[in-house]
Amino acid sequence: MALQQAPAILLHTPQLGENIGAAARVMLNFGLTDLRLVSPRDGWPSASAEAMSAGALGSGVEVSVFATLEAAIADLTFAVATTARPRGMEKPVMDAVGALEALRGHDGRCGVLFGGEKSGLPNEAVALCDAILTYPVNPGFASLNLAQAVGVFCHQWGAGEGLGGRFAGKDEGVGAPASREDVIGLFEHFESELERAGYFYPPEKTPVMINNLRNALIRAQWTQQEVQTFRGAIKALSLGRGKARVKPEA
Amino acid sequence: MALQQAPAILLHTPQLGENIGAAARVMLNFGLTDLRLVSPRDGWPSASAEAMSAGALGSGVEVSVFATLEAAIADLTFAVATTARPRGMEKPVMDAVGALEALRGHDGRCGVLFGGEKSGLPNEAVALCDAILTYPVNPGFASLNLAQAVGVFCHQWGAGEGLGGRFAGKDEGVGAPASREDVIGLFEHFESELERAGYFYPPEKTPVMINNLRNALIRAQWTQQEVQTFRGAIKALSLGRGKARVKPEA
Repeated sequence: MALQQAPAILLHTPQLGENIGAAARVMLNFGLTDLRLVSPRDGWPSASAEAMSAGALGSGVEVSVFATLEAAIADLTFAVATTARPRGMEKPVMDAVGALEALRGHDGRCGVLFGGEKSGLPNEAVALCDAILTYPVNPGFASLNLAQAVGVFCHQWGAGEGLGGRFAGKDEGVGAPASREDVIGLFEHFESELERAGYFYPPEKTPVMINNLRNALIRAQWTQQEVQTFRGAIKALSLGRGKARVKPEA
Repeated sequence: MALQQAPAILLHTPQLGENIGAAARVMLNFGLTDLRLVSPRDGWPSASAEAMSAGALGSGVEVSVFATLEAAIADLTFAVATTARPRGMEKPVMDAVGALEALRGHDGRCGVLFGGEKSGLPNEAVALCDAILTYPVNPGFASLNLAQAVGVFCHQWGAGEGLGGRFAGKDEGVGAPASREDVIGLFEHFESELERAGYFYPPEKTPVMINNLRNALIRAQWTQQEVQTFRGAIKALSLGRGKARVKPEA
C-alpha cells in the first residue's frame, strides 16, 4: 500500500479552542498534519488549543486560517463533507471505509470538512463538496463531539495507510511456540506427578481425565518458555509445601 | 447482522472527569451503554464528567464504579486490553476490526479496557485480558487522548452493528436519475442554443466541441429534476439579459 499525502482536515467555524487542539492531537496520532480553520470563533492562535493538542500544534500539525470556506478549499480537487443528517442533496454518501477508498482514489490534494460545534456544516458548505461522510451513529444520540468526529476519520486513514507497525499480530512474546514434543513432555510430566499424588481415581476414568486436562491446556498454545515455566511449577508442587528449590526464571 | 449486547467499556484509574464524560458521550453515540470505572482518581460522581457527557450520563450510559479491576471484570468472559506499546506478553494483538470480530464471536459478556491518562494500562491489568487492541498510530506521536481511544473503538462497534441507518448510500436527493432520453434532450437543447449564439466556430470543429461538452456534463449523472433545472438555465441565458421569465423551480 503506497503512502500518499494525507488529506487536509478542515474545521468550519469551530468554536472551542479545546476541540481544535484535540483535533490536532488525534490528527498527528494517525499521521495527518494539514489543519485548516475557517473563521474560528475565538480567533487564532488559541492557548486552550495549544494545551489540548499535547504538543501536536507546533511539532507536526500545521494550522492555516481562512476567512472563507472557498479560500480554504481552493487548492483541493476532492472534498468530503461530514454530517449526521441528510441534506436532500444528490451526493454519494459514504461511511468511513468508503470515504477512505474515495480519497485514496484521488491523486490531487483532498480534504475532509467538519462543521462547528453548534450546528454542524451549513448546506452551502456541503454543496461545495463532492461526497458526504457519515458515521453509524445512534439515531437517538447522534451528535459527536467535533474532535471525536475528526478522530474517527483519522483512525480510518491511519489504518488504511498501514501505520501501526509498532507491533502487530502478536505482542513481542517470551519466545517461540512450543513444539508438540515440548507440550507432550509437559503433559506426561504433569500426569506422572498427578498419578503419584493419587489424583486419578477411579482408575478406569484415567484416560478420560487425561484427555480433559490435555484439551484444556493445549488450547492456550503455549510457548517453549511457558512450557518450561509450568514444568517448574509442577515440580515445585510435587515436591510438597516448603520444599521447592527451583532456580528462578530467567 | 444480529445485534448483540455491546461490550462494556472499562476505564482503569481514569484521572479527568472531562475524559470520562467525553467517553460516555461517544459510547452513546455508537450505542454502548455499560461504562465501568476502576478507582477513578477524583471519585464519582463528577460534575466535569456530567458536563462533557452532553447528557449521555443519566440518559443512556450506566456507570458503575469498582475499587479493583478484578471486581470490574468479574462477570466478563472475554476482555480486550488497549495499548499503544508492546508488553512482551503472549497474547493475540488486534486492530479495531480484528477486536470487533473477536468480540462478536463471544456470546458472554465482553469488555474493552482502557488505561488512565498518565501511563495507560499496567502490565498486571493487561495480563488479565484475553487479547490486545492497538491502533495504527504514528510511532512519533502515539499517545491518544483517553476519550479518543474509546471513541475509535465505539465507532468500530457501531459500524459492525449496522447502525447509521439514518441515511446511507445516497442522500435523499431531489428525484430519480435522468434517463438517457432526458439527458440527450438537454444536450440537444443546449447545443441548439449554442449554435444560435454562434458558439461553434470554426464549423468543422462542431462535432469535437459537442463531444467535449457532452462528456463533461454526462459525468455528473444528473437527476430528472437537475436536467429540468439546467434546461431552465439554458433558456434564461438564451433569451438574453433581463429577458428571462421562466417559472420559479418547484
